[in-house]
Amino acid sequence: MVSLRNSSDSPVPTIYILTATHYRLVQFAELTRMCQTLLHIKNVHWVVIEDAAAPSARLENFLNRCGVSFTLLATKTPSEQVLPPGQPRWRYARGVVQRNRGLQWLRENFKLGQNEGVVYMADDDNTYSLRLFDEIRTTKRASTWPVAFVGRLIWEGCVTKPGHPDIIYRMQTIFKPWREFPIDMAGFAVNLQLILSHPDAKFVADPKLYGMLETDFLKKLGLRNFTDLEPKADGCKRILVWHTQTKDPDIVALDNMKTGFQPTMLPGEFFEMTIPPAIMVIYSQLNPCGT
Amino acid sequence: MVSLRNSSDSPVPTIYILTATHYRLVQFAELTRMCQTLLHIKNVHWVVIEDAAAPSARLENFLNRCGVSFTLLATKTPSEQVLPPGQPRWRYARGVVQRNRGLQWLRENFKLGQNEGVVYMADDDNTYSLRLFDEIRTTKRASTWPVAFVGRLIWEGCVTKPGHPDIIYRMQTIFKPWREFPIDMAGFAVNLQLILSHPDAKFVADPKLYGMLETDFLKKLGLRNFTDLEPKADGCKRILVWHTQTKDPDIVALDNMKTGFQPTMLPGEFFEMTIPPAIMVIYSQLNPCGT
Repeated sequence: MVSLRNSSDSPVPTIYILTATHYRLVQFAELTRMCQTLLHIKNVHWVVIEDAAAPSARLENFLNRCGVSFTLLATKTPSEQVLPPGQPRWRYARGVVQRNRGLQWLRENFKLGQNEGVVYMADDDNTYSLRLFDEIRTTKRASTWPVAFVGRLIWEGCVTKPGHPDIIYRMQTIFKPWREFPIDMAGFAVNLQLILSHPDAKFVADPKLYGMLETDFLKKLGLRNFTDLEPKADGCKRILVWHTQTKDPDIVALDNMKTGFQPTMLPGEFFEMTIPPAIMVIYSQLNPCGT
Repeated sequence: MVSLRNSSDSPVPTIYILTATHYRLVQFAELTRMCQTLLHIKNVHWVVIEDAAAPSARLENFLNRCGVSFTLLATKTPSEQVLPPGQPRWRYARGVVQRNRGLQWLRENFKLGQNEGVVYMADDDNTYSLRLFDEIRTTKRASTWPVAFVGRLIWEGCVTKPGHPDIIYRMQTIFKPWREFPIDMAGFAVNLQLILSHPDAKFVADPKLYGMLETDFLKKLGLRNFTDLEPKADGCKRILVWHTQTKDPDIVALDNMKTGFQPTMLPGEFFEMTIPPAIMVIYSQLNPCGT
């Protein structure tokens, strides 16, 4: 957990990637891709926080196989924060208590003034250019860059002053443009020291604060507005992260999970495929593609 | 282009990855992830075939930056094979002429009896375990393994005889289960020699052959049915590839492509963000999230 030092003996800050994750069919596909991305990055520590009462063996096995330095934590989203069925997805911010658990872990394990590091909240469905991590690593207090496919724009985020790639003078956004930090979670990184020096800075799950999760958090870290952030990605001129989303697979009968198909088969674990004959009959009566 | 040799001087077959790709908003995000996967694989050559009259500079720049050994080709889907708007996606198989262009390239560049290699048709939206490529590389004629999220099942594909992980005795599938090869494109690999020894084996775009693309091709390679295939992935017991699909981003106005936002901005290229003030007014009149 000690920061590595490069050949010139100056510290290379560790990047702490905080990833909230929850069970779904595509979970291990997305974590597999993210693992392959992080495997390319030096001096990274992946803090994965499961939405569960306790860490699952499936996820622990996966992370062990992945090969990236990791910590697996778990905390369950309280029932009152769980999105009711049929409600629009934005009704509740997801991953709130998990990200807070990750922040708690940082505060329990590192001390103000002692550890070099940078913190990035990276969801498991986004797409990350390898270059993004070089940009993140040099964050002194808090930094930002544009993110593709956010807020119903092709990209959303910082715009620097012409001829001054180090000065952000406006934010490209259409959703609640009055926000002090019109930024998606994928669009900022924070120095570990700033997290440690503001022990009460947490994310708040409140539908009334819809869309304000990032702004509320960054203000609690003592930042006033986007002009306080360090612009990255060549003066905010490159797309290095895409807010991609994966479709839910079109599966005939999720009931099959109660029978021969088991979700535990998916992570690439060894699995047995013993499907009762009755299930096969049911399937053969279906005409899945309308032909 | 010559196969590398490992320390024991036995040839390590090159894996030729044939990827048909077409322009869309998420194209470079998906290619970025696939690049990061392939960067982990030794002795791989990525043959990317664009749906375009000629290779684009954007894609060539991307592949140069990616760092994987590559060949960029292009061929445009004939207008009669282009899916009419509003038609179901399965109406025409996509990537047909592009994959054939890839096969043509293999036949132009390699000679029967001379080059060791294995061919895999890998779409840019799937998720690949790194271990999949170890499995592919040892393909003698043609091999197969289960694929997740295909044919409306959690996984579709080979099932081996209990106690005989080297013998496929049935295929887990519900879509046209009478197909000789009930397999998705992501579920098989073919030895280069088999491609070269069957110079007329190509993919056929015909809506009447819906769902038969893979079967038709494998039969043209002289294979009878799935029992002719080598089972991989621990006797078909692991999921090493997921047929994931990425959602189309929800963008306010694709018209913006005609104005300040340009699709060429997306690949991570250096881009300028000069949005005419008029466009900003249009945006500010929109209320994208209904709040």
